Amino acid sequence: MDLDLIRDLVVKNDTKIVLLVIDGLGGLPHPETGRTELEAANTIHLDRLAADGICGLTVPVRMGITPGSGPGHLALFGYDPIKYQVGRGVLEALGIDFDLRRDDLAARGNFCTVDKDGLVTDRRAGRISTEASAALCQDLRGVSLPGVEVFVEPVREHRFLVVLRGKGLAEGVSDTDPQRLGVPALAAEPQRPEASDTARLINDFIGQARTVLADKHPANMLLLRGMSKWPQLPQMPDVFGLRAAAIAVYPMYRGLAKLVGMTVLPTGTRPEDQIATLKENWGKFDFFFVHYKATDSRGEDGNFDAKVAALEDVDTIIPAIRNLKPDVFMVGGDHSTPALLAGHSWHPVPFALWSPWCRRDKAEMFDENQCALGGLGVFPATGALPLALANARRLTKFGA
Amino acid sequence: MDLDLIRDLVVKNDTKIVLLVIDGLGGLPHPETGRTELEAANTIHLDRLAADGICGLTVPVRMGITPGSGPGHLALFGYDPIKYQVGRGVLEALGIDFDLRRDDLAARGNFCTVDKDGLVTDRRAGRISTEASAALCQDLRGVSLPGVEVFVEPVREHRFLVVLRGKGLAEGVSDTDPQRLGVPALAAEPQRPEASDTARLINDFIGQARTVLADKHPANMLLLRGMSKWPQLPQMPDVFGLRAAAIAVYPMYRGLAKLVGMTVLPTGTRPEDQIATLKENWGKFDFFFVHYKATDSRGEDGNFDAKVAALEDVDTIIPAIRNLKPDVFMVGGDHSTPALLAGHSWHPVPFALWSPWCRRDKAEMFDENQCALGGLGVFPATGALPLALANARRLTKFGA
Repeated sequence: MDLDLIRDLVVKNDTKIVLLVIDGLGGLPHPETGRTELEAANTIHLDRLAADGICGLTVPVRMGITPGSGPGHLALFGYDPIKYQVGRGVLEALGIDFDLRRDDLAARGNFCTVDKDGLVTDRRAGRISTEASAALCQDLRGVSLPGVEVFVEPVREHRFLVVLRGKGLAEGVSDTDPQRLGVPALAAEPQRPEASDTARLINDFIGQARTVLADKHPANMLLLRGMSKWPQLPQMPDVFGLRAAAIAVYPMYRGLAKLVGMTVLPTGTRPEDQIATLKENWGKFDFFFVHYKATDSRGEDGNFDAKVAALEDVDTIIPAIRNLKPDVFMVGGDHSTPALLAGHSWHPVPFALWSPWCRRDKAEMFDENQCALGGLGVFPATGALPLALANARRLTKFGA
Repeated sequence: MDLDLIRDLVVKNDTKIVLLVIDGLGGLPHPETGRTELEAANTIHLDRLAADGICGLTVPVRMGITPGSGPGHLALFGYDPIKYQVGRGVLEALGIDFDLRRDDLAARGNFCTVDKDGLVTDRRAGRISTEASAALCQDLRGVSLPGVEVFVEPVREHRFLVVLRGKGLAEGVSDTDPQRLGVPALAAEPQRPEASDTARLINDFIGQARTVLADKHPANMLLLRGMSKWPQLPQMPDVFGLRAAAIAVYPMYRGLAKLVGMTVLPTGTRPEDQIATLKENWGKFDFFFVHYKATDSRGEDGNFDAKVAALEDVDTIIPAIRNLKPDVFMVGGDHSTPALLAGHSWHPVPFALWSPWCRRDKAEMFDENQCALGGLGVFPATGALPLALANARRLTKFGA
């Protein structure tokens, strides 16, 4: 979707739009019953919404592409995730709620194992525990670089975050992960002239880290990837004319919302806390992104029944949202996470939109098969937000 | 589909993917029965595949565009046929199995009729017979050009192929066909500086040919179009990580497969010969393109019942393919060829994909109407190959 087109057509009014993202929403049929998680779950409120509204299946990135959380959400926010890519370092920082600033350079780190000749023997250092990783991060904080502050934060298992804070840091430094074994870690190389000082700092960091880690087998070395700065994405208030708010429990989703200019609201950890936050802030914003995580987590666990239970859990908050009488209410997912695959997948994702003008279709239940028959068909997820704006009467006619 | 995106995400494994292209697959309802060729045909194995798999309709190029064989196949191979265009000269060479080399320049020729003033009176010389055309081609082989070899080969009726072989031949020479009557054939003009020598050679060829043909009424002159060299398309092994093989009877399809880096396997002319070839080579490749031609030919003949019979014929090879237990099995078409139109058409084409992870939909029969209700919707044909890679677990996650 061309954001310049949308920007030119946007008008403001006092409508309210709610987007509920049920993370990892779509699934695959259980081999014994032939029913997907959504088909197995007793979700009467979601089914009612599907029956009252118009349905479809969203393609988050492109046919066949399995998205991470970043691309999956950006698409639902209206941003083509191929055009607007966010570096891994930045995503890692968002994911642990690191207070990343506009001029910081963030990198994703892996602790790894090298042999006596410095050749990589395990790119993940045997997936050391998060606790072991945290201790090593503490040690690495002793590294000192000229003119920049260094932050090292554990993420999970062998993964950690490095942030350099200072003036003149530039993107355009290559990864040091050789992506294979039996070779040394690569040097960070500048990929454009203005990144040469930054590459030198990164290599200085790695050199000192090598000494710090030398006797810390199995995590006796590190690899850095995705050196990146806060991306300059078009902001939702500017492009879509929406005062947008995020009500999300997990740092990654709050971070993604921040990237596109949403106000991130403090909230509790339970769905009912999120509903309370929604009610309290109802008058202050035009657009609310409400994020529900457990469906994805249970899908990632490969636990079909627990994912069904999570769907039934999120179903209970639907009436409270509808009772607020949003002008447009959308329910979708950033990607599918079938319990059978125990991970994200490429399958198009169920989507339902209700508004007084939605043009109700024949889909009567909120599941993969009914949504496939819906009035929206199989469509790019980037179309959801413009569709919501249209249903909120926030887009004028294109052309005379 | 952005091939660079795919290339970055590809991983290799030992899965097998089969793409069966049923040429000219889609049709139109017979006016007496209201049933399309596919609906009329008794194709229990294709129906079973549709019921077990996920279905949709592919748009080969763009909505409303009727593709030739080249664009229709390139799309199914994952290449946007607007971005990757193949010159007519090259396609003509592929179609007659001419051994085109990387530096050759190929042109499509038409014998035409000119009056005593050299003005074109029939651009196709009354569609002279292929035999008459072959005799003229033989005469034209006497043309001699400085520093290049000249090949002239009959194709069909008034159509023939001219290939120049030598050093420094360049694309970028304009067509000589004026595309209307009552005007002379155009001179070949260089459209870029490096093509000026090539244009001179082409005009030299035409000048000599004019003399050779002068008294050969009605084919007393020729027109050349689509001067082109072997196109540098991204190769399937590089982009998709697939050792790809083609099992096709007709030269055009073998040639198209060669353009994208498939290995073209020798095979017999009957479908069962193609299946034998598939079995023999099962261990040696990751991806198999199997081409079935008769459906298109009978559609082009305008013979509804014969197209139905061809569909029933190709249906008989489905069990043999499924018995090989491919990880992903796709059946689709390069375009529709409705018998009612006796030619290619723009109608979206039935498509079915089976894999253990396909997410079976409600489509129970393999025909236009059931596929329209399938879980893939109406989608660009270029999405088929990435979808197959996803189902073969050959694509990693995009973004974190």
